[in-house]
Amino acid sequence: MELLKERIRKEGKVVGSDGILKVDGFLNHQMDTALLRAIGEEVRARFEGVQVDRIVTIESSGIGIACFVAQACGDIPMVFAKKTRTRNISGDIYIGQVESFTQDRRPYNIFVSRDFIRPGEKVLIVDDFLAHGSAMSALIDIVQQAGAEVAGVAVVIEKTFQKGREIVRGKGVRVESLARISSMSEEDGVTFI
Amino acid sequence: MELLKERIRKEGKVVGSDGILKVDGFLNHQMDTALLRAIGEEVRARFEGVQVDRIVTIESSGIGIACFVAQACGDIPMVFAKKTRTRNISGDIYIGQVESFTQDRRPYNIFVSRDFIRPGEKVLIVDDFLAHGSAMSALIDIVQQAGAEVAGVAVVIEKTFQKGREIVRGKGVRVESLARISSMSEEDGVTFI
Repeated sequence: MELLKERIRKEGKVVGSDGILKVDGFLNHQMDTALLRAIGEEVRARFEGVQVDRIVTIESSGIGIACFVAQACGDIPMVFAKKTRTRNISGDIYIGQVESFTQDRRPYNIFVSRDFIRPGEKVLIVDDFLAHGSAMSALIDIVQQAGAEVAGVAVVIEKTFQKGREIVRGKGVRVESLARISSMSEEDGVTFI
Repeated sequence: MELLKERIRKEGKVVGSDGILKVDGFLNHQMDTALLRAIGEEVRARFEGVQVDRIVTIESSGIGIACFVAQACGDIPMVFAKKTRTRNISGDIYIGQVESFTQDRRPYNIFVSRDFIRPGEKVLIVDDFLAHGSAMSALIDIVQQAGAEVAGVAVVIEKTFQKGREIVRGKGVRVESLARISSMSEEDGVTFI
């Protein structure tokens, strides 16, 4: 998606030697809804002809993207996994475990109410980044716990030098990434495939 | 907003004696983007003729609402305050303190990058609930720290039996609520003003 790559080239910042790409000017802190709407349309086009009944994502960075994908798909239901188990989602829930690679944190759990993924649904999972694939694995696990089917995974930015795609493909799930980064550094910036 | 009140009457659930209204079927866990789009249009209409340069909200429940308000306002920039200080927002930040009334938690800080609220901007603050007004107070404080001006506050659901509106009005800020609840209980459900 050329429009997206241009924004990443222009505004993205590579920070540190361990692969942080800051896109907080348009994707995951400040948000550009015109770009998000275009992202939603692009995801819908990539999955043209595929039945999708529901969008699933994870808070917080996935929410805006998932909203616009759901809108592009004709306002199908969207649900986001929560990282804390608030009283709002007390009751019957699905739990997924996410391995964490940032700031040496421990694995954490994510939660989705059982009311909001139904057996047999075709689910498209959406997120901002695909890197190690740990959040994505937990989301796929939750969808499968629900007896629903993962119609595919759509991410805005993929770090192809990490193993996320391999992990998701290993589960037999289709992956679509709107911008695929083959390498990045503070000095040279971002290179796309 | 009658459409919204109908959804709250039909799907909202009052839980416990201390005033939890669950609207997780359409607003803050599962999300109905058709309703959110209508909410965005309604907020824009309420602030017709008022200059708004930017939408500010707080993760996670505010993000979807703010996205659709930003879209309705012609894709103006939107930024959400974060509850954790990740590396994505390292650098210069505004910090607001939120008093917490839920689950006996301590006050917590919220963070917005200084890059994403500019001096002189007219800011519309958006959130799902207005109850005690604590998150809203912290957001107003952050906007004012930035030298920007609060054009108004728009919330989807107001609990008028708590002091949120009074606190916000006390700061000289206009409040628009799309559904105003005067009382609620597990037995009798929700009553609107």
